[in-house]
Amino acid sequence: MTRTLCSALPTHARTGPVTVAGWIHRRRQLANVTFVVLRDRSGLAQIVVTEPQVREQVSRLPEETVVRVTGTASANAKAPGGVEIIDPTVHALSAPAEPTPVELWRPALGVGLPTALDHAAITWRHPARQAVWQIAAASLAGFRRHLDGAGFTEVTTPKIVGGSTESGANVFALDYFGKTAYLAQSPQLYKQMLTGVFERVYEVGPVFRAEPHDTARHLAEYVSLDVEFGFVDDHRDVLALLRTVLAAMVDAIREKAGAAVETIGVELPVVPERIPVVHFEEALELVGARPTEPDLAPEHERFLGKWAKERFDSDFLAVEGYPAVKRPFYTHPQPGDARWTNSFDLLFRGLELVTGGQRLHNHADYLTALAARGADPAEYAPYLEAMRHGMPPHGGFAIGLERWVARVIEAGNVREATLFPRDIHRLHP
Amino acid sequence: MTRTLCSALPTHARTGPVTVAGWIHRRRQLANVTFVVLRDRSGLAQIVVTEPQVREQVSRLPEETVVRVTGTASANAKAPGGVEIIDPTVHALSAPAEPTPVELWRPALGVGLPTALDHAAITWRHPARQAVWQIAAASLAGFRRHLDGAGFTEVTTPKIVGGSTESGANVFALDYFGKTAYLAQSPQLYKQMLTGVFERVYEVGPVFRAEPHDTARHLAEYVSLDVEFGFVDDHRDVLALLRTVLAAMVDAIREKAGAAVETIGVELPVVPERIPVVHFEEALELVGARPTEPDLAPEHERFLGKWAKERFDSDFLAVEGYPAVKRPFYTHPQPGDARWTNSFDLLFRGLELVTGGQRLHNHADYLTALAARGADPAEYAPYLEAMRHGMPPHGGFAIGLERWVARVIEAGNVREATLFPRDIHRLHP
Repeated sequence: MTRTLCSALPTHARTGPVTVAGWIHRRRQLANVTFVVLRDRSGLAQIVVTEPQVREQVSRLPEETVVRVTGTASANAKAPGGVEIIDPTVHALSAPAEPTPVELWRPALGVGLPTALDHAAITWRHPARQAVWQIAAASLAGFRRHLDGAGFTEVTTPKIVGGSTESGANVFALDYFGKTAYLAQSPQLYKQMLTGVFERVYEVGPVFRAEPHDTARHLAEYVSLDVEFGFVDDHRDVLALLRTVLAAMVDAIREKAGAAVETIGVELPVVPERIPVVHFEEALELVGARPTEPDLAPEHERFLGKWAKERFDSDFLAVEGYPAVKRPFYTHPQPGDARWTNSFDLLFRGLELVTGGQRLHNHADYLTALAARGADPAEYAPYLEAMRHGMPPHGGFAIGLERWVARVIEAGNVREATLFPRDIHRLHP
Repeated sequence: MTRTLCSALPTHARTGPVTVAGWIHRRRQLANVTFVVLRDRSGLAQIVVTEPQVREQVSRLPEETVVRVTGTASANAKAPGGVEIIDPTVHALSAPAEPTPVELWRPALGVGLPTALDHAAITWRHPARQAVWQIAAASLAGFRRHLDGAGFTEVTTPKIVGGSTESGANVFALDYFGKTAYLAQSPQLYKQMLTGVFERVYEVGPVFRAEPHDTARHLAEYVSLDVEFGFVDDHRDVLALLRTVLAAMVDAIREKAGAAVETIGVELPVVPERIPVVHFEEALELVGARPTEPDLAPEHERFLGKWAKERFDSDFLAVEGYPAVKRPFYTHPQPGDARWTNSFDLLFRGLELVTGGQRLHNHADYLTALAARGADPAEYAPYLEAMRHGMPPHGGFAIGLERWVARVIEAGNVREATLFPRDIHRLHP
């Protein structure tokens, strides 16, 4: 008999026998009846066991054992979905499960983050945890769907690279057949080279940062949603595309992970028609920092996040014009004042979520920028080759998937939105 | 004025001025006229320059310079798409391009693979090269679209891992904050753990093999299309899903990369309604190998590929039942005869493309399998935790993206289908 998903049971009420399969999420053995709540990828279903022989069988199948159940779907307003299964036969598909390190049937996990992460393969089974990742998966789908529709080409670029991407700091080194290689900190140089090929490219892939930070928002490996495209006027075109990408991601969450949003009780952000923008110089004034500060501190970002919410009723705020001294060599200067750049950070609920901007596109400008930093152009030869042979004005951005999801669900720690996080202390599971 | 893509020019003929933008693909300066072929992400367009001042301007813009051109679209049966642009004004968007290492306007690249790879950022601009990657990108889209529609959840798993995935051989090691870590050879253990969470998962991501092979089909880093799902009866269910995935990938190529297929002149494979299957034991007989051979050699695979074509008119052949001794510890044995396994290799045009099968799902069976190999269960503790607490019968497979594309386009070398290949000799660009 074909399997019915728990979520589809209501359409099967009183139509004859149905078969469901999944994990025994909860088992309650009362005096004359055993209630089993079954969990599958679609949700939960209640099974009512009264037949003594089946009750005896179920008594030997602890929670998390995997079973297939055939019975009759029967309306019961008190059951999840308004339907339960009665008169079941039960077939165990796994050996009886051993007691889990956390009780997954409880409404909340009720353990600290380190314990949850130590037992990630089990704790992600909890419906409230599953829901977090369903939001992540929907975000990925929305990101790609929007860009596919806008003429972008998906690319995949190497994660083992011969030189560090942006600076020599915080890279993981490895032995590569006797040579030293590095794990890519970003696909930045490759996505620019490929903008010279396909005009519009995106990549979803891991990036690696050997940053010895032990904070709630840093990971040593995370998923970067990278976009780069040509024929822009300046960074404002990049910000405009970013706005539509974020809106598409929110739409996809609503559409594909609506149940997850309800399970967690998330209020989805509204991406405004125009994301408010302040210049870095103005941002420093707003937060009361000295005008020579080269960067915004986390508390500045939080302040600006609140300010944008109050002033523009926006969860998003773009800070443009970041000082050239703090931006990578490929950043395009602000026309007329090279202290500043055509780049931005996007703050989402007071936390930096995206860095983007316009890049240099002429070979001579790259040579000047590298010389100003004392960098050797020879180290960037294959990249500079693209610039030497005709590149359009271009720009792009990168969204950190886990940060995005953590902010959407208002989690305090980015690790809550990461299936198997990697940080300075954590290499397992 | 908004930009029109070259491919959309025919709809603009004689409707007033149009603006196109892209690379000067080819420039021919005749006595009284200059022809410019412009290349953008959609294709080519011809521009006819007769005005002396514009001709003089264009004489200073070599091929690959990026320009914006405004003029009148005018029907001309001899021009690409039947429309050319006349009376143009030209605005350079990049500095004049330096001469490229290969002439991109020629119908074929006309250089050897090493040269093409050395200058990848330039050579991928060639329309015939672009087409190869458009087939790759369409394949990715088709893979995901099919699985999204079949209730799968996309996951992302760590590429830095604390232990080697399947065996200690051929892994890249790195220093991870003072500990030794490895680059994941596959997401195998993680995708199984997540099958315990989401039932059906897939991942598209890089995998790393420190194999010192220097062959036309090995890469040190490639893109793996990984699938794993629960509630299977055996490996035949896995093969049935694989069939639908491959058919969806071919459909997506046809739909999204039709022009690329035409450019290269590819004959797309037909995925049969049922992929023919031979048992490993029978395959040895067919190729005339000794019945104790534990594996198929490349020449055996080629022979079987031809045999399947002749016998079943199929580009695909599954060889099932591979000897347990050559399969990883998690492989499910063939019921009734544990010499063999519930696993398969899928040959595509005589080359191994996919490995898949059913996995063990009970904790006790894992302990037995690891003990038989002298492996320490403690090294697999987080993975075994999933098995300890209820896992459905499950299986999956992995498709190598580059191998897939190389076979589709009938390229002799997998590097032809890789944007920036990594191998024992190549770490740049």
